Amino acid sequence: MTAATTTIARSDCIALDASDKLAPLRDLFSLPPNQIYLDGNSLGVLPTATAGRLQAVIADDWNRAGWMDLPNRIGDKIGSLIGASPGQVVVADSTSINLYKVLSVALALQRADATKTTILSDASMFPSDLYVAEGLAKTWNLELQLVPTSDLLTAIGPHTAIVLLTPVSYRTGELLDMHQFTSVAHGAGALMVWDLAHSAGAHVVDLLGCNADFAIGCGYKYLNGGPGAPSFVWAHPRHVNAVSQPLQGWLGHDTPFAFESSYTPARGIQRYVAGTPPVLSLAALECGVDTVLAAAPLGGMLALRQKSLALTRLFIDCITERCGDAFEVVTPIEDARRGSQVSLRFRRGSGQDAYAIIQALIAEHSVVGDFRAPDLARFGFTPLYTRFVDVFDAVHAIASVLETRAYEAQVYQVRAKVT
Amino acid sequence: MTAATTTIARSDCIALDASDKLAPLRDLFSLPPNQIYLDGNSLGVLPTATAGRLQAVIADDWNRAGWMDLPNRIGDKIGSLIGASPGQVVVADSTSINLYKVLSVALALQRADATKTTILSDASMFPSDLYVAEGLAKTWNLELQLVPTSDLLTAIGPHTAIVLLTPVSYRTGELLDMHQFTSVAHGAGALMVWDLAHSAGAHVVDLLGCNADFAIGCGYKYLNGGPGAPSFVWAHPRHVNAVSQPLQGWLGHDTPFAFESSYTPARGIQRYVAGTPPVLSLAALECGVDTVLAAAPLGGMLALRQKSLALTRLFIDCITERCGDAFEVVTPIEDARRGSQVSLRFRRGSGQDAYAIIQALIAEHSVVGDFRAPDLARFGFTPLYTRFVDVFDAVHAIASVLETRAYEAQVYQVRAKVT
Repeated sequence: MTAATTTIARSDCIALDASDKLAPLRDLFSLPPNQIYLDGNSLGVLPTATAGRLQAVIADDWNRAGWMDLPNRIGDKIGSLIGASPGQVVVADSTSINLYKVLSVALALQRADATKTTILSDASMFPSDLYVAEGLAKTWNLELQLVPTSDLLTAIGPHTAIVLLTPVSYRTGELLDMHQFTSVAHGAGALMVWDLAHSAGAHVVDLLGCNADFAIGCGYKYLNGGPGAPSFVWAHPRHVNAVSQPLQGWLGHDTPFAFESSYTPARGIQRYVAGTPPVLSLAALECGVDTVLAAAPLGGMLALRQKSLALTRLFIDCITERCGDAFEVVTPIEDARRGSQVSLRFRRGSGQDAYAIIQALIAEHSVVGDFRAPDLARFGFTPLYTRFVDVFDAVHAIASVLETRAYEAQVYQVRAKVT
Repeated sequence: MTAATTTIARSDCIALDASDKLAPLRDLFSLPPNQIYLDGNSLGVLPTATAGRLQAVIADDWNRAGWMDLPNRIGDKIGSLIGASPGQVVVADSTSINLYKVLSVALALQRADATKTTILSDASMFPSDLYVAEGLAKTWNLELQLVPTSDLLTAIGPHTAIVLLTPVSYRTGELLDMHQFTSVAHGAGALMVWDLAHSAGAHVVDLLGCNADFAIGCGYKYLNGGPGAPSFVWAHPRHVNAVSQPLQGWLGHDTPFAFESSYTPARGIQRYVAGTPPVLSLAALECGVDTVLAAAPLGGMLALRQKSLALTRLFIDCITERCGDAFEVVTPIEDARRGSQVSLRFRRGSGQDAYAIIQALIAEHSVVGDFRAPDLARFGFTPLYTRFVDVFDAVHAIASVLETRAYEAQVYQVRAKVT
């Protein structure tokens, strides 16, 4: 790597933006003025279309329109971003609820085999996913086995019933090889469940190609669906009709309007819809998903991934050059192992210092990243609306916070609040 | 009853509206012009405040505001309408999902007693609730016992683990005595679970007073929260901390922002929140709930109930007088046994005729009721926005549809679609 010896000028970044064919997509968003938003991996930016769409729903569609179509229509759109076929994805409920559905089904599929005793996951998996898995493991008398990322492949064994992973670590930004993990899981007779929260809209995902078993994901991160946007769920065709998921609701019924007193699950992924869909939140989610689909004529997810990698690479190069003595880049520098975010560990101080640096960046420079305990400063780079010059300016702001020690005042405030 | 011999004039109804202290509440709604909307038991009307509130959420609160507070704040507001104390109700997920949570907990509480083998419900319970109960009964090897409403009290026995009922039948509008049923259930050692979908905002509910065990309900019917609005859930304080509900999500965690890898349920009803709340849908729900709370200075739920009874009584009297030979009133005429709707069975024809009458009413008279298979025409009377003159005009429209036989053309269309 030659990063630390390369000198990058702001004018270079402006030139990169000028030649970026995806640059016009930024106009699809209502970005706060004078802010550099590097938190799209937590909550995507508001699309400009959302406000009008919600007004239209209120004016025209309040009375039932969309209750039936939206979960499938938006599901198909998301499916096109993650390597699923039309009719294989629906939008429903929250990520936690959808994970409960697919884990329950996966457990039911494995129950006949008494040697399958564990759900395996990453010790740094989304905690919320671990809560769902922990509850089901307890109910069904299985072990939830958590190991460090580096030990995952060797931990998969004949006892493994299910491997539950996210392709991109929310903490480090490390990207796993979905083909490799799915293949190793299958080799051990385990089912592979992916949480695509930091993947859908962020990098190329090929669910059918890697032969995964189940996937779920989040609507409000790279899909820009707004706070608490509904989640999506996918089951491989070989599993989708095998068993009924446990949250049996009327919109997962084969004939919901017959109002039969007994449950007959719908064929296909429709059975993963349970209760009545939240139409307003779904409408906003569709606006968000449409911003990603707008990249299709410009090269689609492959082009977005190329830009994402260029943005994160630029950030790593710049931060190494300007602040390499202060920060360790925790995220892998190899492109194939990096998601759409970069995480930094502050070398000099405590986790509280990293938190204070993020707070100072927001307060003094309107550069929005976030902090993940115990000690990571985390920056997400959404290729739809992040410019190369934003990366340069964000690093300049980080360097400035370090030089002026502005974060020390923030540390003081944090401590004052705690005590 | 003297209903059939009373002659009611339109001017009488206008006079009733003029002296109705709740009449100004109608201005809180964006009612479609020239329409008489008698379907608020299916989907409430759009509050005038909702559009502005959604714009405000988009403009000001997109970035996280409300994620934490809304489920509790709106929960407390709903709690005040159903006889629960502050901190006892949260808004989360859909009715089906919340029913799954409370039934799972109730089953866990009863599991130690091997004599408790059945979940008892009404054969005409909401089908969607029966789907959830059926799934759990199968998982836990219990029987789901369904009996006619009239047999419910005697069917409760020592084998009954859980009694699952709705106070108001969605089909007939019959209102059950919540105190009596809860008391009989407890006498048999069963737990009482109420679905308040057709109750919250429609009649006086006193969960603590009747000593119920669990309750759930819907946000988009009498609470006017909009299509697919989130649901609410209540657990009696004696149960709320007893066991963890199975859908363990990060917002039900005791310390969600510590991102611990193991689940510790929050104290109190907060543990019934699972994933991230859908902020846009919650904001709209709050506008809806606020329309009901606006009745508080005018007498609150008691005043709303009085008006609701007056409206349904007027409808029954008018329909009996004008169309008594054509329709049987299925809903009980005793006030204490009637919810906020009236259901009619067409004496002359098939269920398809009742469906056709509803379609003709909507198409030719802009009177919106709905149909429930196999043979019921159903009319809901929301006291917040329904006028006495609306009742008179609706009956006039129904009589007109009968007299002109307009519905026969509708029957033809229905049959044409089916064949």
